[in-house]
Amino acid sequence: MDEPEPGDVFGELIKDAWAVRTGVGPRPLAGGRVPRPVIEIIERDDGLINGAPADHYLGDPGEWQPHDHRALRLCRGAVLDIGCGAGRTALELQRRSMAVTGLDVSPGAIEIARKRGLRDTVVATVEDFTRGATRYDTFLLLGNNLGLLGGPEQAPKFLAALAQLAKPGARIVAQGTDPYGTTDPVHVAYHQRNRDRGRLGGQLRLRLRYRRLATDWFDYLNCSVPELEGLLEGTAWRLKSVDLQDRPYYVAVMERC
Amino acid sequence: MDEPEPGDVFGELIKDAWAVRTGVGPRPLAGGRVPRPVIEIIERDDGLINGAPADHYLGDPGEWQPHDHRALRLCRGAVLDIGCGAGRTALELQRRSMAVTGLDVSPGAIEIARKRGLRDTVVATVEDFTRGATRYDTFLLLGNNLGLLGGPEQAPKFLAALAQLAKPGARIVAQGTDPYGTTDPVHVAYHQRNRDRGRLGGQLRLRLRYRRLATDWFDYLNCSVPELEGLLEGTAWRLKSVDLQDRPYYVAVMERC
Repeated sequence: MDEPEPGDVFGELIKDAWAVRTGVGPRPLAGGRVPRPVIEIIERDDGLINGAPADHYLGDPGEWQPHDHRALRLCRGAVLDIGCGAGRTALELQRRSMAVTGLDVSPGAIEIARKRGLRDTVVATVEDFTRGATRYDTFLLLGNNLGLLGGPEQAPKFLAALAQLAKPGARIVAQGTDPYGTTDPVHVAYHQRNRDRGRLGGQLRLRLRYRRLATDWFDYLNCSVPELEGLLEGTAWRLKSVDLQDRPYYVAVMERC
Repeated sequence: MDEPEPGDVFGELIKDAWAVRTGVGPRPLAGGRVPRPVIEIIERDDGLINGAPADHYLGDPGEWQPHDHRALRLCRGAVLDIGCGAGRTALELQRRSMAVTGLDVSPGAIEIARKRGLRDTVVATVEDFTRGATRYDTFLLLGNNLGLLGGPEQAPKFLAALAQLAKPGARIVAQGTDPYGTTDPVHVAYHQRNRDRGRLGGQLRLRLRYRRLATDWFDYLNCSVPELEGLLEGTAWRLKSVDLQDRPYYVAVMERC
């Protein structure tokens, strides 16, 4: 059995999802073949595999979760939308005449964001981006992108990079998920397995797959609010507020100390 | 990274899809978590992975493809619905007061078929089932289940088992897919790779995955009509008619020689 290949998994996925949404493709179908939704596949290191329709990455504001709308109202000044994907939220900020830069590591996702009209885009990690001179008032991490904190090792580096990119008085607006409400035995066992290995319970080790492509394995963090406060200790950021209206999802606002 | 575990992949998938469709579950969600459709994941031996919503396995007749309706009109006498899954087509035949047995290797799928009201069910392969005394007038292979022919090695055995199970004048009604209309380079390359290995181009080598479970790798055949005729040579069956209205999908009727 052949292994999948490295590549811009998320970008290829988004390009196909965009083609399906706009009725262009995604690629030549055998005549008459019934079109199918584009599915994002996520593998976890305990052998769990999940698929989910990718179309939500392209959702118009009317299709969003309520906490996304509340999160956008927390943005101030120049906004860096981190992991902006196909520009779902950055495009709405731009429409509201806010200064917004869309940053993503996926060239394919940024290609679609630009096609959809997003003007200021960067293909980079936040760590790479600190080498530039641009500074921001708000760092936006939506679509569960608080997960980019990764875990106890990765979070301080990520937060230090944001501190470097920050104007005075800057804030982080981030949507996370508390993983511990579940009673699903597969997830409960996974949280325990992580703790047994010295990891946070919701410190997911994942890779994305799409067609013949796979990413490397990476950490993506679902943490509780107390765990988030623990990760902020000793960093340049402190928790200012948490919107818990849509549990287990939450929107955290962090400010520079 | 842990390997997935063996188990009734299709059954677990169908049970969850049924729970979602009927609004029961599938399993405890963390309070407020947004429910997601159940996705069937199929890996191919070239590293390709695809996901597709599983709900179609439970589709009412109003949701079917047109060729399914035309296929049911070709059924005569006592029908064995092979790979009946959750009873999608067998239930409709039963509703029409036809004699129908639903056969599937998945205990979980048969459990759901019975819950939905299918009265005559068997958990077995067709080879196992030949040991019984029941004989049939029609063998129904819908949902692309002509694929159960597998390939040049497996097809004669499968067709011999059906011949053993056949009453005089019996027929096979089977829906297949001609794979060769595609211009997708991934699939075109896969067909060539198969031929280079002495296999039929559309002789897919697959495994199903769902959550932490995976099947063994198995052959599943997408063949053209000429390839089907080749596979029937020397068997007890001959091609009687092919309905090509919904290309690349087709419905083939085979009769006992």
